[in-house]
Amino acid sequence: MMKIDVLSLFPAMFEGIFGESILKKANEKQAVTYNVVNFRGFADNKHGQVDDYPYGGGAGMVLKPQPIFDAVESLKNENESKPRVILMCPQGERYTQSKAEELAKEEHLIFICGHYEGYDERIREHVVTDEISIGDYVLTGGELGAMVVIDSVVRLLPGVLGNEDSPVKDSFSSGLLEHPHYTRPADFRGMKVPPELISGNHRLIEEWREKESFRRTFERRPDLLENQTLSEKQKRWIEEWEKSR
Amino acid sequence: MMKIDVLSLFPAMFEGIFGESILKKANEKQAVTYNVVNFRGFADNKHGQVDDYPYGGGAGMVLKPQPIFDAVESLKNENESKPRVILMCPQGERYTQSKAEELAKEEHLIFICGHYEGYDERIREHVVTDEISIGDYVLTGGELGAMVVIDSVVRLLPGVLGNEDSPVKDSFSSGLLEHPHYTRPADFRGMKVPPELISGNHRLIEEWREKESFRRTFERRPDLLENQTLSEKQKRWIEEWEKSR
Repeated sequence: MMKIDVLSLFPAMFEGIFGESILKKANEKQAVTYNVVNFRGFADNKHGQVDDYPYGGGAGMVLKPQPIFDAVESLKNENESKPRVILMCPQGERYTQSKAEELAKEEHLIFICGHYEGYDERIREHVVTDEISIGDYVLTGGELGAMVVIDSVVRLLPGVLGNEDSPVKDSFSSGLLEHPHYTRPADFRGMKVPPELISGNHRLIEEWREKESFRRTFERRPDLLENQTLSEKQKRWIEEWEKSR
Repeated sequence: MMKIDVLSLFPAMFEGIFGESILKKANEKQAVTYNVVNFRGFADNKHGQVDDYPYGGGAGMVLKPQPIFDAVESLKNENESKPRVILMCPQGERYTQSKAEELAKEEHLIFICGHYEGYDERIREHVVTDEISIGDYVLTGGELGAMVVIDSVVRLLPGVLGNEDSPVKDSFSSGLLEHPHYTRPADFRGMKVPPELISGNHRLIEEWREKESFRRTFERRPDLLENQTLSEKQKRWIEEWEKSR
């Protein structure tokens, strides 16, 4: 069973997330346990102070090393484990599906979530094993990033996704974006489903899906095709689309 | 005041998010209102069915057009607005800080969050104005993506971030990653703060920060430097680092 600890000053943010849908089911199926720790409880001063002014001056506050060092140490001792200690921050490596697959093999993950403060550099250097950024945008804290990583990892754990929950098809695993999907009715307020999909001809349906999946990738994310060798069929499709422009 | 509506089958996921920290404060300061709508309530069938099997076969389910069309229509009429209607999906444009800045200028945003189902293509074509992906990884639903976008947008609204909440320095706005931060104590269990930062010499501090910010970007995210013209100083630093390897 995977153990996930989260250090955060806003533990209530996680209640609705761990208590719903797949993350809740994964816990009920004993694939994972969640534990959110308010690291203010580890501050060794009377006032529970966890941040302080930055050396060298400037706006904003910086998370002190002591509460984080002690909280992580305590979680390691309690579990007798060698966890991955993950810092959510904009300077981290860009998160990808292959990183999710890597983390899904671990037994114990600890997430450190700052909240508009900076992190004292000694935390990065001596406590953290992985720095992760979920994308090039600024968030008010690490909590949402941690939730994103946790969701993407937990759904990969054995037994978590039943067939009923499986995505129609995962993007990224095939290297192409998904083809369009349609469901009933075939005519919704005059907007119709492509005839191929209601033809009952499986070869025709497969070909339509293959082509539309490639078209969507070609139009929206050509970068995903850069490291792929195009088939003759795919090259013909590109020619066809370029002619009809 | 910005109005944010979210269509989701798991409204409870949002409670801890909208009820804490900056997103809560922004609402208290009347910069934004949140409204989470369970679009199952718009299904025009007795059983509240919102998804159905995909045309052409295959695993998984697809969100039907009718409940989404009607929910969005109702929110538009209620607000007499022309909202941006945002679909969270892996095929969408990659989310960036400049998109956050663009969305922060709008008056009304509607987010559509599917949850491991696919979306009927007619929703994309006729209801949605923006398709957004927060990154190249697979999540169980659009809810976390919507939260990420909402957090990054709301913190940009006028009056939301007081000085006390301001980040030490935002990454991405300057085009470079942040320099390391340190706070007290100067010696924590033998780990010391760089002498420049406690020198009291402002020129020295500024230069240290400038160099370390550039070093971190050069080492971790050279892609951010591709469209920048390097200064003579930055070129000298690179030479220096390459010699010392």
